[in-house]
Amino acid sequence: MGRVVLKFGGTSVGTIEKIKKTADQAIREFKKGNQVVVVVSAMGKSTDRLVDMALEISDNPSKREMDMLLSTGEQVTISLLSMALHEQNYEAVSYTGWQAGITTEPIASNARILDIDTETIQDALTQGKIVIVAGFQGISADREITTLGRGGSDTTAVALAAALEADKCSICTDVVGVFTTDPRYIKNARKLNQVTYDEMLELANLGAGVLHPRAVEYAKNYRIPLEVRASHEDEAGTMIEEEMTMENTKVVRGIAFEDKITRVTIHWDKKENMRVSKVFTTLAEHNIDVDIIIQGITGLGHGNLSFTIKTKALLETLAVLEEHQETLQYAKLESEQNLAKVSIVGSGMVSNPGVAAHMFEALTDNDIAIKMISTSEIKVSTVVDEKKMIRAAQVLHDTFELED
Amino acid sequence: MGRVVLKFGGTSVGTIEKIKKTADQAIREFKKGNQVVVVVSAMGKSTDRLVDMALEISDNPSKREMDMLLSTGEQVTISLLSMALHEQNYEAVSYTGWQAGITTEPIASNARILDIDTETIQDALTQGKIVIVAGFQGISADREITTLGRGGSDTTAVALAAALEADKCSICTDVVGVFTTDPRYIKNARKLNQVTYDEMLELANLGAGVLHPRAVEYAKNYRIPLEVRASHEDEAGTMIEEEMTMENTKVVRGIAFEDKITRVTIHWDKKENMRVSKVFTTLAEHNIDVDIIIQGITGLGHGNLSFTIKTKALLETLAVLEEHQETLQYAKLESEQNLAKVSIVGSGMVSNPGVAAHMFEALTDNDIAIKMISTSEIKVSTVVDEKKMIRAAQVLHDTFELED
Repeated sequence: MGRVVLKFGGTSVGTIEKIKKTADQAIREFKKGNQVVVVVSAMGKSTDRLVDMALEISDNPSKREMDMLLSTGEQVTISLLSMALHEQNYEAVSYTGWQAGITTEPIASNARILDIDTETIQDALTQGKIVIVAGFQGISADREITTLGRGGSDTTAVALAAALEADKCSICTDVVGVFTTDPRYIKNARKLNQVTYDEMLELANLGAGVLHPRAVEYAKNYRIPLEVRASHEDEAGTMIEEEMTMENTKVVRGIAFEDKITRVTIHWDKKENMRVSKVFTTLAEHNIDVDIIIQGITGLGHGNLSFTIKTKALLETLAVLEEHQETLQYAKLESEQNLAKVSIVGSGMVSNPGVAAHMFEALTDNDIAIKMISTSEIKVSTVVDEKKMIRAAQVLHDTFELED
Repeated sequence: MGRVVLKFGGTSVGTIEKIKKTADQAIREFKKGNQVVVVVSAMGKSTDRLVDMALEISDNPSKREMDMLLSTGEQVTISLLSMALHEQNYEAVSYTGWQAGITTEPIASNARILDIDTETIQDALTQGKIVIVAGFQGISADREITTLGRGGSDTTAVALAAALEADKCSICTDVVGVFTTDPRYIKNARKLNQVTYDEMLELANLGAGVLHPRAVEYAKNYRIPLEVRASHEDEAGTMIEEEMTMENTKVVRGIAFEDKITRVTIHWDKKENMRVSKVFTTLAEHNIDVDIIIQGITGLGHGNLSFTIKTKALLETLAVLEEHQETLQYAKLESEQNLAKVSIVGSGMVSNPGVAAHMFEALTDNDIAIKMISTSEIKVSTVVDEKKMIRAAQVLHDTFELED
């Protein structure tokens, strides 16, 4: 007998009809002979409605009271889902975060899970019950209700799977799995059967927020097999695991891409004036995220530094840099908008040094100019013209034969 | 420094605007130098909305899961009220039933409070915070969320006042207090400054459910001074206490009345066939409430028994009695509809034997026929024609000079 944790987000339990379908899916897993734990979020727009009420009272409501308020959302869903299972004559019991033994840091709105005392859940599972747990919430040591912040319900599911030593944690969502690239733009994108945790982290922006990075990291640390699959359909999704089976021999597993990138370049007259680390600490102090970084020194003793940011952060970035010109001692600032990032991702890359060259060649052969390059052990990213982004993704998808 | 508990029902916190006004009232009490605990119900129609969702899933949802579902209603209100107090720069903290230390019987939907561990609340009060507690809910010894059933939030408030040894428990509602009689029908009805617990129990049907009898009994047992007063107005209401001050010397304190009463009469040919207790156990088994009971034996050895019921229960009452005719051995059944009950209430009655006679005389002088009489230590009830009910109440209100 196996033990599985299923997680359903707000959209998947957004209506009474969908809650009934969620019950059906839990029953399918139960009928396979599994012990089943279901983690659910608040119903669809209910969190927004609660937030709106709070904002009618205060522009800046207390985080402690927001947790008190928002944690009711999941509590509604768990009780309704439990009723839906009873209605089909299955034994089920719902637990809030604190009833499920989920202890967190004493930090309102953005707590991390510290420990899970699984005794209550284990007892219920042993009695043959389907257990339903409120996602996104827990309790601090001083008995305060806390919420987990971004990606919260995914994290609850993965942490419960770890604490319960589950065989699998399935994240049931509105996509059928993780794809080789974004199927909305690349027609021959293919659903992957397997990816590694690291690949998943790099592919995170494919399929628009399928899984929160914090949950993937948690799963990686505790070696929990994660599945991304469609809600309310009995079809296997994509498994995210450490080890790949033999058939998954492709070096490149997926193509990620992202538009609305801007490159900022800082020029110094003398390389001894370059204050590279000061640039990035200054930007970090203003919460400006920097992605690809390239540092160059020309033969004449001049120096420059290029980095990419999201275009929407450009005005603030330039303002911050200009404000600190004296400290940073640079001579000139430049920026280029309308760029995009296109990356190939795959764990096998580290042992296949020719992959990057193969990528550059394919892009160049197709008249796609490469403006920046950045590499890691499992990823090679290039910056290209925004207009050529989709074609670049398509070229690379074909070049590395991801359709098959 | 005093300590007060304020309770606001669903209507009094039904909108964001009303929650803000509730905050104002709590602040007024706080500014008087009191420690303030506020108990609130779910916002207006929110409980109905939750019940509707449950009924979309199941005709007969699990009571345990209903408690899980409905207890979110008060949790929303407490957090919003706390935010409203913060917004006016007062320190406030909200607690769910379990956080407030309210332990109940392990009975879903209709639990009674067993114990309150006030440590958390006392600490917060000592720190100068206004404490907000979710009414209607608690936790059982096995960590299940429970709700208190009818009159729940009133009971929470009174029980908290007892456990905290508060100086007063104010039930803030949509009436300004308890009246000598129903002001909707009797123009010169007057707000009472004081009534005793027992009088309050007898006057309970005045002002349509101002206070739940369970809460009044609780207050009586623990000698908690109770106040019924208007929400959102800074005006004294009616105090409900054991001892009356000297100025309250009237023997009759109030006139209660109720229409839609039916008298049922059972006739036996032989008095030895009379199965009086069997009649009432049979009716009780079918959850039929009986009010006034009169048993008569005629000189010829015949016997009869009359009792009143609410008219809406008539069809079922007759059906039950007919079904059990063989066991009950009666000869004939009669019923008279369109009756009303009019009562005078006052603790002083027990030591004033002439009061009942005074009442009957006043009614008779005004051509109001008395069809049944029932007396207790603090109440005399008469059954009259429904058409004459209001006039009877007015006559008695004038006779006993309640206007002054």
